[in-house]
Amino acid sequence: MNKLFHYKDLERFSKEVFQKIGFSKEHAQIISNSLVLANLRGVDSHGVVRIQYYTEGVKKGLINPNPKIKTLKNENFFSIIDGDKTLGYIPATLATSLVISKAKEHGIGLVGVINLRHVGMLANYIKKVVNEKLFGLAIANASPNIGLHGFKKPVVGTNPLAIGFPVDGSKSIILDMAMSVVAKGKLLLASKKEIEIPKGWALNERGEDTTNPNEAIKGMLLPIGGYKGFGLALAIDIICGIILGGVYGLKMERTWFSQGGFLISALRIDLARSYDEYLREIKEYIKEVKATPVSEGVKVMFPNEIEEEITRRRIKEGIPVEDETFEEFVRLAKEYGISPPKPLNL
Amino acid sequence: MNKLFHYKDLERFSKEVFQKIGFSKEHAQIISNSLVLANLRGVDSHGVVRIQYYTEGVKKGLINPNPKIKTLKNENFFSIIDGDKTLGYIPATLATSLVISKAKEHGIGLVGVINLRHVGMLANYIKKVVNEKLFGLAIANASPNIGLHGFKKPVVGTNPLAIGFPVDGSKSIILDMAMSVVAKGKLLLASKKEIEIPKGWALNERGEDTTNPNEAIKGMLLPIGGYKGFGLALAIDIICGIILGGVYGLKMERTWFSQGGFLISALRIDLARSYDEYLREIKEYIKEVKATPVSEGVKVMFPNEIEEEITRRRIKEGIPVEDETFEEFVRLAKEYGISPPKPLNL
Repeated sequence: MNKLFHYKDLERFSKEVFQKIGFSKEHAQIISNSLVLANLRGVDSHGVVRIQYYTEGVKKGLINPNPKIKTLKNENFFSIIDGDKTLGYIPATLATSLVISKAKEHGIGLVGVINLRHVGMLANYIKKVVNEKLFGLAIANASPNIGLHGFKKPVVGTNPLAIGFPVDGSKSIILDMAMSVVAKGKLLLASKKEIEIPKGWALNERGEDTTNPNEAIKGMLLPIGGYKGFGLALAIDIICGIILGGVYGLKMERTWFSQGGFLISALRIDLARSYDEYLREIKEYIKEVKATPVSEGVKVMFPNEIEEEITRRRIKEGIPVEDETFEEFVRLAKEYGISPPKPLNL
Repeated sequence: MNKLFHYKDLERFSKEVFQKIGFSKEHAQIISNSLVLANLRGVDSHGVVRIQYYTEGVKKGLINPNPKIKTLKNENFFSIIDGDKTLGYIPATLATSLVISKAKEHGIGLVGVINLRHVGMLANYIKKVVNEKLFGLAIANASPNIGLHGFKKPVVGTNPLAIGFPVDGSKSIILDMAMSVVAKGKLLLASKKEIEIPKGWALNERGEDTTNPNEAIKGMLLPIGGYKGFGLALAIDIICGIILGGVYGLKMERTWFSQGGFLISALRIDLARSYDEYLREIKEYIKEVKATPVSEGVKVMFPNEIEEEITRRRIKEGIPVEDETFEEFVRLAKEYGISPPKPLNL
């Protein structure tokens, strides 16, 4: 049984932990808010479960809690930020503000971050972009987890891509996806539950299909659409790891917080047509797509719709946290002399 | 048995047909060169087989052979071109030249085309961009062919995406992919051969998995990665069909030459780092990826590598054309009083 927690309590706890391990109050706030927003969207793999890994990373000297963030390049629409090995949330949040102002001024903005650790869920950054009535796109590359049939080692990360379109007020279309068929967390869960995984999710160490989650964990994840998803992950690896001057997958250590580079882009829609015209047509589009004839019980949903539903529910009912993670929280709370988050249903 | 033809002879024939149906010599050359380049890359679905469909389109007044191409917007890095309902090859080739000069001047270029018909294989445009030592990206949206389980109608096109990285001389990395698991042509081929298709390729008209190619043809294609590929196709539909002011999938007629919009982007790599540094690292990357340990008989290949191999072979040995298509050529040759292409192996 997982316990439920109020998102503000989790954010408070997270903020206190990150301040205790050396982050400034402002930076601890950025990280904690991002983690909790991931949980609120239902993406628990990118939520507060990461606190323990990041804490470890700081202790081992692999994550810098007190970074000197530098701007390496800054020419009208383009910029590159050096994250000084801190958690990517901090420079990526900066990059997002910068890309928004660049897009407003120049029509387009393109901002990269290198020398960073985990940026977390990309939808967080894209949400800020679409809230400013801009089109947004973000990518990031990570350590290898994906391979193809016959490969004995993974070659590219699950390298996510997020794309966002503003719609109206708080509504928006945000696609945030990794290039693997499923997240690695699903293999870990199947292993814990001692159940098989479907063929097509992963390969073993010899590059063969496997339904055994433990073999899959030692092996690699399969990309969506075979060479297509592999090619997309490769392209993201090259953009973030080579064009931006970050680090590509094969050069990265496999940790819970590796990240090679991050790129965010924003575009002013009224470059092409008036924003009002765009808005009218995208609303019509949503209506038309949703009117697709479907079988009973099937619902046509846009990217971000389920996530918004989960957010509304979790704000009210609380965020579920696995017992093992909660035990870690209690341990961290004791270590740092702070209060652990308080379960709602006790 | 398919006959083989010299690519120059196919190009000559194609050029003569397009001139006979009203295209200028220059435009006929652009279209014919693009078709033959698709065949040379092994993408026969986008090659000379299309001549008969385009001819039909012109006869029905759906394709304009004598367009007045207009620039609707043109502000430093950004432009939109109106294709005046002609085959997309013509305005998209113009857009590609424009995007290259914009990227060279401003660092980035972004050029859209609306009011157009089929643009063909996107790799053709991206190849021109990478040949100028620029990073390139192109997308296009088409009439609906993809749906999800439970959908009784397809909602989005297979909406291709092409991404390219320059490497060295004629070498480059070019990913050109549609968002469906397989091309519709594979269903047509299975139907002709009266063989089953694997589960996971397509759905029937009730949105259920099917292994019957005829049911699949009446139904829809499945996207790569389920909602992920669907989301990507949707995003491309919105960018090309709504942001650019083109036409989105559901508003398009389903023909062999429908296209809603086309967008091409080019980026100067030295915005971020010196081109020489980039080149050194991408070559190292290719070497490192290719050194992945693999099972016997498996080869690690980059996007564009197989296609370049096929090109070399087909330049020498000829391009295979299906007998039915050749019969159409003979018919068209008679109709227009020109010589049909001459099979190499007769």
